[in-house]
Amino acid sequence: MALIVQKFGGTSVADVERIQAVALRVKAELDNGNKVAVVVSAMAGETNKLVGFVEQTAKLYDTAEYDVVVSSGEQVTAGLLALALQSIGVSARSWLGWQLPIKTSSAHGKARIEGINADDILASINAGNVAVVPGFQGISPKNRVTTLGRGGSDTSAVALAAALGAERCDIYTDVDGVYTTDPRIVAKAKKLDKITYEEMLEMASVGAKVLQTRSVEVAMKHGVRVQVRSSFSNEPGTLVVNEDEIVEQELISGIAYSRDEAKITLVGVLDQPGIAAKIFGSLADANINVDMIVQNVSADANHSATDLTFTVTKADLERAVETVKADAKDLGYKELQSDPNVVKVSVIGVGMRSHAGIAQRMFQSLADKGINIQVISTSEIKVSVLIAEEYAELALRSLHTTYGLDGDE
Amino acid sequence: MALIVQKFGGTSVADVERIQAVALRVKAELDNGNKVAVVVSAMAGETNKLVGFVEQTAKLYDTAEYDVVVSSGEQVTAGLLALALQSIGVSARSWLGWQLPIKTSSAHGKARIEGINADDILASINAGNVAVVPGFQGISPKNRVTTLGRGGSDTSAVALAAALGAERCDIYTDVDGVYTTDPRIVAKAKKLDKITYEEMLEMASVGAKVLQTRSVEVAMKHGVRVQVRSSFSNEPGTLVVNEDEIVEQELISGIAYSRDEAKITLVGVLDQPGIAAKIFGSLADANINVDMIVQNVSADANHSATDLTFTVTKADLERAVETVKADAKDLGYKELQSDPNVVKVSVIGVGMRSHAGIAQRMFQSLADKGINIQVISTSEIKVSVLIAEEYAELALRSLHTTYGLDGDE
Repeated sequence: MALIVQKFGGTSVADVERIQAVALRVKAELDNGNKVAVVVSAMAGETNKLVGFVEQTAKLYDTAEYDVVVSSGEQVTAGLLALALQSIGVSARSWLGWQLPIKTSSAHGKARIEGINADDILASINAGNVAVVPGFQGISPKNRVTTLGRGGSDTSAVALAAALGAERCDIYTDVDGVYTTDPRIVAKAKKLDKITYEEMLEMASVGAKVLQTRSVEVAMKHGVRVQVRSSFSNEPGTLVVNEDEIVEQELISGIAYSRDEAKITLVGVLDQPGIAAKIFGSLADANINVDMIVQNVSADANHSATDLTFTVTKADLERAVETVKADAKDLGYKELQSDPNVVKVSVIGVGMRSHAGIAQRMFQSLADKGINIQVISTSEIKVSVLIAEEYAELALRSLHTTYGLDGDE
Repeated sequence: MALIVQKFGGTSVADVERIQAVALRVKAELDNGNKVAVVVSAMAGETNKLVGFVEQTAKLYDTAEYDVVVSSGEQVTAGLLALALQSIGVSARSWLGWQLPIKTSSAHGKARIEGINADDILASINAGNVAVVPGFQGISPKNRVTTLGRGGSDTSAVALAAALGAERCDIYTDVDGVYTTDPRIVAKAKKLDKITYEEMLEMASVGAKVLQTRSVEVAMKHGVRVQVRSSFSNEPGTLVVNEDEIVEQELISGIAYSRDEAKITLVGVLDQPGIAAKIFGSLADANINVDMIVQNVSADANHSATDLTFTVTKADLERAVETVKADAKDLGYKELQSDPNVVKVSVIGVGMRSHAGIAQRMFQSLADKGINIQVISTSEIKVSVLIAEEYAELALRSLHTTYGLDGDE
């Protein structure tokens, strides 16, 4: 008799009929002989409506009061699901963030869960009740309502699973699992049975938004087995687990891409200590996240200047250019080039730790298609390249074949 | 520097614009040099929407979960009003029911406030912040969310005023005060400057639904001065206060009526001990509230039978008739007559305690207009009569003149 945490997103609880369908899914898990805690999002559209009220009321708003308003959406769903469960004969009750409590940091609107007191809820579950918990919410050390930021309900579910010592955390969503790459682009993409936390994190960081990144970090830290599965089918989904659980590890698990990239190149930057610190310090002060950074060796004879390329999100490009230009005198660069028409393509797999030649095959495959690589960056389990946006689909299909990931179309 | 509690109902906070208008009203009170705590209802229509969700989800529902769902409406308004205040430069924060806490009984859906811990909120108010409190909600001894029943926000406001030792509790609503009678019927009705708690209770109990009855009881118990006033004008409203505060007490303060009455007469009931207990015990078991009760002296020669008349609400009439019929054998009545076409008219005034002849003037006034009185009941400060519904307006106008209440048309 295992304890399972189930999490249902906004589209899965969009109206009363769907909430009643969710209740049946919960009951099915009970009929399997398991105990269940459920984490729910707000009904689809509700959070946007509440955020709209806040923005209509005040241009610059207090995030503590934003949290009071916005957290109400999940509260409604939690109460309704408890009622839907009761009406099909399942003993259930809701547990609001403050009732456990779910303790978070004070960073309203983007709080981090710091601890969950699971004593009472666990006693209730062990006494035969389904626990229904609103996702996304908690309380600060000052006893104010907090929210975890958009998509935070995934994190609520995983953290609750950790606190309850749950066997598994099932994230029900509108896709049926994690794919080797985007099936909308590569028809031969395959659903993965299993993927490691590290790979999942890299997939998320390059744009495969199946799970909120933070939720994967929490799962990895606490060893919570997470299953991504569809609300609309009974097929098993993809298990996100520790490397040890994956017996036959593929070399490459997936190929991800992100269109949300823009490139800035500073030509002829002074090659002096402290220059990079200056540039990226200014960008950090402006709250601009920098992703890839590449500095070439000085090309001129006396090594007095160098070329520096980095990427930011498309939304930040204009501000990033302005920030750098404001520092132009100190940096002494000759020319600033910017380009929003780039895409980042990444091959991801824990297998590459122990296998050489992964990156080389990537570069060769792209070269064979005549795709020019603009920037390269690597991590232990990922190789990312920046290419012109127009080659995105070609690159994905080519690499998918190169690494032997193609399934049936 | 006084502390004022202001309460705004659903129509006063129906949308963001109105919430911003409420913020200006709160600021005006601050500009008067006062400290303010505000109690808010849900945005108009919101509670009905949430109740609709609950009823759609489960036919027979757990009131504890009903409370979780329905209380969210006031939470949203509280956050939004705090934001609206901040955006006009007023320091403000919301305080949810569980944050004070507002402690109530466990009777979900119709809980009674048992105590408010005002230490933290008072410290915050004294430090210069406006406190915004969602009405209608509290927490049970088991730490579950409770609601006070429809209109409960009035009670929240008065109870908070008592806990804070407030100078006054202003209830902002869509009427500008309490009138001598219904101005829609009697054009010469006057707004009262002051009315006693007792009179207000009697007015409410006979259908003048300006304030929730329970809120007046709480105000009377704790000596909270309540002002009923309009959200849409700056005129002073009606003060509901202790008798001592009213220097020149009118004999009669108001004339109220209730159309929600139905009459049942049992003709020829056995005149034996225990018969009344039997009838009204059965009705109580069926959860039917009985209002007026009149038993005539036995009219027949050997005093073996009597006629019994009582009133119930129109909604309960059918069930009441069935309940009595089920007991027919024990009661041995000859005939059961029921009539939903009746109205109860009441003259109300603490002045009648020390003045004789009030009731007599009422009966004479109605007789002069040819209106037959079916049932009479009296309390210390009220005389009520039941008459045929078609005479309601005529009776109100006639009595309003009789007791010298007519103002300018």
